[in-house]
Amino acid sequence: MRGADADASTGPSFLRACRRQPVACTPVWVMRQIGRYLPAYQAVRARMSLLDLCKTPDAAAEVTIRAVEILGVDAAIIFADILLVMEPLGVGLSFLQGEGPMIHRPVRTGEAVRRLPDVDPAESVPFVFEAVRLAREGLGGRVPLIGFAGAPFTLASYLVEGRPSRAFLETKHLMHADPDAWHTLMERLAVLSTRYLNGQIAAGADAVQLFDSWVGCLSPDDYRRFVLPHSRRVIASITPGVPVIHFGTGTAGLLELMQEAGGDVLGLDWRVDLGQAWGRLGDGVAVQGNLDPALLLASPAEIRRGVRAVLDGAAGRPGHIFNLGHGVLPHTPWDHVVAMVDAVHELSTGTGASGRFGSRA
Amino acid sequence: MRGADADASTGPSFLRACRRQPVACTPVWVMRQIGRYLPAYQAVRARMSLLDLCKTPDAAAEVTIRAVEILGVDAAIIFADILLVMEPLGVGLSFLQGEGPMIHRPVRTGEAVRRLPDVDPAESVPFVFEAVRLAREGLGGRVPLIGFAGAPFTLASYLVEGRPSRAFLETKHLMHADPDAWHTLMERLAVLSTRYLNGQIAAGADAVQLFDSWVGCLSPDDYRRFVLPHSRRVIASITPGVPVIHFGTGTAGLLELMQEAGGDVLGLDWRVDLGQAWGRLGDGVAVQGNLDPALLLASPAEIRRGVRAVLDGAAGRPGHIFNLGHGVLPHTPWDHVVAMVDAVHELSTGTGASGRFGSRA
Repeated sequence: MRGADADASTGPSFLRACRRQPVACTPVWVMRQIGRYLPAYQAVRARMSLLDLCKTPDAAAEVTIRAVEILGVDAAIIFADILLVMEPLGVGLSFLQGEGPMIHRPVRTGEAVRRLPDVDPAESVPFVFEAVRLAREGLGGRVPLIGFAGAPFTLASYLVEGRPSRAFLETKHLMHADPDAWHTLMERLAVLSTRYLNGQIAAGADAVQLFDSWVGCLSPDDYRRFVLPHSRRVIASITPGVPVIHFGTGTAGLLELMQEAGGDVLGLDWRVDLGQAWGRLGDGVAVQGNLDPALLLASPAEIRRGVRAVLDGAAGRPGHIFNLGHGVLPHTPWDHVVAMVDAVHELSTGTGASGRFGSRA
Repeated sequence: MRGADADASTGPSFLRACRRQPVACTPVWVMRQIGRYLPAYQAVRARMSLLDLCKTPDAAAEVTIRAVEILGVDAAIIFADILLVMEPLGVGLSFLQGEGPMIHRPVRTGEAVRRLPDVDPAESVPFVFEAVRLAREGLGGRVPLIGFAGAPFTLASYLVEGRPSRAFLETKHLMHADPDAWHTLMERLAVLSTRYLNGQIAAGADAVQLFDSWVGCLSPDDYRRFVLPHSRRVIASITPGVPVIHFGTGTAGLLELMQEAGGDVLGLDWRVDLGQAWGRLGDGVAVQGNLDPALLLASPAEIRRGVRAVLDGAAGRPGHIFNLGHGVLPHTPWDHVVAMVDAVHELSTGTGASGRFGSRA
């Protein structure tokens, strides 16, 4: 971690940027920074499944910390999956190798919504909270720890579709055909998300990210009617003082409405110009993003060029957290991620200095 | 066709809207209006394959006209496929039932780009031009006829990926790893698109739509460097006086750049607010769109509500062509499309009158 940012009187650069305070250099972390692209993670996954890893707090904390050490990023994010919290809903959730998550009894009717049991994350996913405690302890204050949850719409879209979707037709059908059932489902998922995030905060998370990853499939009109009130309720109920990052993809046409729903930081994907988007949003919000993850498959020179373009868009305004526009891709060379992190630090200070802790392997 | 719009002194409402001239009521047509959702089309496809239908000019002209008669839309679009023009490139194009188009020898290297033969659409796809001639003749001036082609990027993405893609990683890899090969490929496809569109115009098309359907996967920075000059060249080379509609999906963050590339009309998908988008673009361009195709699976009341929201966004400004934000979905009830067309005509004039030609079945 950088000396300047470690200064206790100023606080970590990531949290300062969340609050739109000036920083010595732009903080950076990477969505899905603990992932298949990383040999250290592959080694752990060779020994245990995704679900087992999520349910083994010391292993989850370990991979959380290792990613920070290897990449030199300015924030850790707890290793978990946004669907874990829905496992106790009794919908038949499974993670199939190579196919992504499947829900064997999709929720597509008012009747199915009413049958969903009430779930208390403290009882159903205590292992996540324990992993947060252990990761926070292991990080020893070197960098802040981010907790996260799926936003109500994105959780609902998994529950309704049951399998990976592109058009989300079943989800849209439920909202249009039975708005009462839809809103009931969203209210229940909003309560679940809120409890889950506040539980992670109680366990030691310094900030939280609300992933509304698939909300970009909606028209602004549908977002306003069917999503905004529920996301707003989650964000308004987060433990005061803890920064909230509100993230989605394909949201170039929804940004003002997502801002209305709330969040200290708005996550931008790569399909929008960061400077232009921030201009639309104004100075009242920080932004996170937004390099195209595909660019990490290109040469380090091309990566550096892309980093510079994103930083130029931010134009030194306080409140920019550098990230990809979505999660790192599975085939990304891990040293390209390091090259990106180094370029962010170097180009945003102009010094080239980059003191880190830990080793890289 | 409406009496007011049929007035020869004023011209068809669709062409007037392309030119941002006032109209009696908002013109509407539907992307993929000739498609599987339509029983009259299914009946034809029961007798012949997609490719055979494309290559049989009188049948292609017939389905083109039937769709207009059934739906009561204000423009016809010639029945064809954007990939037809690439069949003579020798890349092994096939249309597999249920899987979409496949290219068996994808173009991923400079060497593969150089091997592509020069193709003259007049020799390779004369049947499309003949279908345009026949459709124009059969329409007898009742509504204008739209010709179309894939934009260089979207054609290139098919050639490079070889199969339906979501992330377009191979395409992005080629542009970043070998920009010379990329630009050569795009230049050649731009020439092909231009010839193909001007050939359709010479055969009788009254307007053309350039489909850059997948360009929304790109960052604005990549669009500017790798796509804009080529799309601009195509649009600048279209036969003067013929309106050009420039269309893409997922382009909420690219609209200003697409406008810079050109087009009399910019196509908007449903993930952007039409009024807000048009506000960003200014008065110098017409817009087309932008109902969510998924909304046509909802009730007629919900469809009518959605139509009204789109029309409200246009706020009566001259230069709005109503359409879906992308093609009509296969399972759409055809009478829902008619309900949408009727709602557009009714709500944009307030008269409820809707004199049509032809029968509906």
